[in-house]
Amino acid sequence: MIKAIAYAATDKQSPLVPFHFERREPLPHDVQMDILFCGVCHSDLHVVRSDWGPSKYPCVPGHEIVGRVTRVGSAVKKFRVGDVAAVGCMVDSCRVCSNCMEGEEQFCEKGPVMTYGGVEKHTGGITYGGYSSNIVVDEAFTLKVPANLDLAAAAPLLCAGITTYSPLKHWKVGAGQKVGVVGLGGLGHMGVKLARAFGAHVVLFTTSEKKKADALRLGAHEVVISTNRDEMKAQRNSFHFILDTVSAPHDINALLGLLRRDGTLCQVGLPAQPLSVSVFSLTSQRRQFAGSFIGGIAQTQEMLDFCGEHGIVCDIELVPIQRINEAYERLEKSDVKYRFVIDMASLSQAAVLG
Amino acid sequence: MIKAIAYAATDKQSPLVPFHFERREPLPHDVQMDILFCGVCHSDLHVVRSDWGPSKYPCVPGHEIVGRVTRVGSAVKKFRVGDVAAVGCMVDSCRVCSNCMEGEEQFCEKGPVMTYGGVEKHTGGITYGGYSSNIVVDEAFTLKVPANLDLAAAAPLLCAGITTYSPLKHWKVGAGQKVGVVGLGGLGHMGVKLARAFGAHVVLFTTSEKKKADALRLGAHEVVISTNRDEMKAQRNSFHFILDTVSAPHDINALLGLLRRDGTLCQVGLPAQPLSVSVFSLTSQRRQFAGSFIGGIAQTQEMLDFCGEHGIVCDIELVPIQRINEAYERLEKSDVKYRFVIDMASLSQAAVLG
Repeated sequence: MIKAIAYAATDKQSPLVPFHFERREPLPHDVQMDILFCGVCHSDLHVVRSDWGPSKYPCVPGHEIVGRVTRVGSAVKKFRVGDVAAVGCMVDSCRVCSNCMEGEEQFCEKGPVMTYGGVEKHTGGITYGGYSSNIVVDEAFTLKVPANLDLAAAAPLLCAGITTYSPLKHWKVGAGQKVGVVGLGGLGHMGVKLARAFGAHVVLFTTSEKKKADALRLGAHEVVISTNRDEMKAQRNSFHFILDTVSAPHDINALLGLLRRDGTLCQVGLPAQPLSVSVFSLTSQRRQFAGSFIGGIAQTQEMLDFCGEHGIVCDIELVPIQRINEAYERLEKSDVKYRFVIDMASLSQAAVLG
Repeated sequence: MIKAIAYAATDKQSPLVPFHFERREPLPHDVQMDILFCGVCHSDLHVVRSDWGPSKYPCVPGHEIVGRVTRVGSAVKKFRVGDVAAVGCMVDSCRVCSNCMEGEEQFCEKGPVMTYGGVEKHTGGITYGGYSSNIVVDEAFTLKVPANLDLAAAAPLLCAGITTYSPLKHWKVGAGQKVGVVGLGGLGHMGVKLARAFGAHVVLFTTSEKKKADALRLGAHEVVISTNRDEMKAQRNSFHFILDTVSAPHDINALLGLLRRDGTLCQVGLPAQPLSVSVFSLTSQRRQFAGSFIGGIAQTQEMLDFCGEHGIVCDIELVPIQRINEAYERLEKSDVKYRFVIDMASLSQAAVLG
């Protein structure tokens, strides 16, 4: 077995603390890597706190992983020792259901094996994520990072990037279209960058006047203050597509009313409570209210390659693992521009402390 | 001006009573017809009672109209005196906005001119619908009825038919697909017939065990009692498309959970209150919750022609206009299989009474 050290939550209320565990020995198709950087996703916080139902503890979060390969199984073809490699939200799936066969492993009929908090197929234990010294993952679920990208800033592409890229691609966002992005956080700022790179006219919706300048800098053509009725009214019936990244309760009908005929509003933020949808918001212009969830492995690689071509990475704040609990507190207050990424080199110090 | 006699509501609570009024003289593009049959849509009742906001009175309902042409304007090309003609939910639109130009007049940016309760472009008065001796309509909004269809049973195609046909076409329902229809009323029974004619495997969802035999007779391959948890569970993740015709409050998440990846649930029933949508119902298989509203004029003609080819009409109960208030009472209790149609020949007697 492979020794690993990580930061873990031991229950839903305590701070994360150093945690020692073991990972499986690499199987023939496995890639073992030392983790260099791991993004901090809002989901990490939700799972650590059991916000979405009881989580398994100890919980080692982290699914925006960039590392360097240290060992490969005998059958591995895509990676060699020394390569940079990346892992996102999934580390496996059934691979035989129709969704898996069609490259949509995130919708695996048996449920994909999530990078943390899932059932480790080979050991029967819990999967442990990227707030960790190393990881062992089947090469089929291991991604390549374009050489021109900053590795720390590329890490959040593995979740925030694919979560926003996938619906933009699925609903064929492109030139000649007016596209809204709701909310300017980890997901929203990637939505703006990607929709802009796809050639769309991008309008950022925010409740916060002070995010205006940043939204324009990130690529938005217009910024609308969504609490301003006049500004909202001026945008009615004009959007081909809206990407809604907000996970707090919000007025979805006001946003649906911005769509033109046959437009789609896609939710990627995950409000815990149901949203109240007026059917007239949908019928009046044959609008669609949809949801999207990360993306398949092939599309995740496509997204990374696209980001490489367009020089797109996340705007990040690099933190040592020792400050993860403080980062969580700030994340809860949306006090981050726009993603915390853990510099895993700091973990060696934690190891001593642990 | 053309003298007309009709049944009208004079306020939101009184019964419908005979009402005399005048229609415009046919303009060059107008078709004048004597109305033979007019279907009774649930919308008629909602508008008469001001359920969807204050209506204009006197209100002459009726937008499922089949008649015989008695006079044509000098520029009319499609119709001759003596032809059968039909009128649906709209009698005009702006004709120049992008939606109108694309044949989607129901989504006219200025709002289509509805067959009743709208603003009559030429006189500035209220538009009066089909519970009436005659009507004058621009030929661009007048439809042809295939010769092989029973005229009384064809009348409800003008609303119930197009309302269900349009989304089935838009979302490309066809052979090899599993399609659900929720509710077996005026819309639902047409949804079953049309989805079956499109070649889909059709599953009817109802809360009423006693509708089972009828649903199978109408063309459903399966019937699911939607209050039975086990029956519902067996259908999870399996539908390509669901047409929801229910206008009462209902559990939309239970229905969304029946859709497979990328499936769409389209609402055509119009619940007055918002529905509570869990975002996880959408994100978990990238599902779409959509709405559709009648259909464009060209598609309405296409639907009529399709029904002619497949011998599809509505299951109706023919009533004289004198029994319209009783029909409304029964409609409110869903006590009709599946659409009341007014035999307008009865109106000559009403004229005497009036």
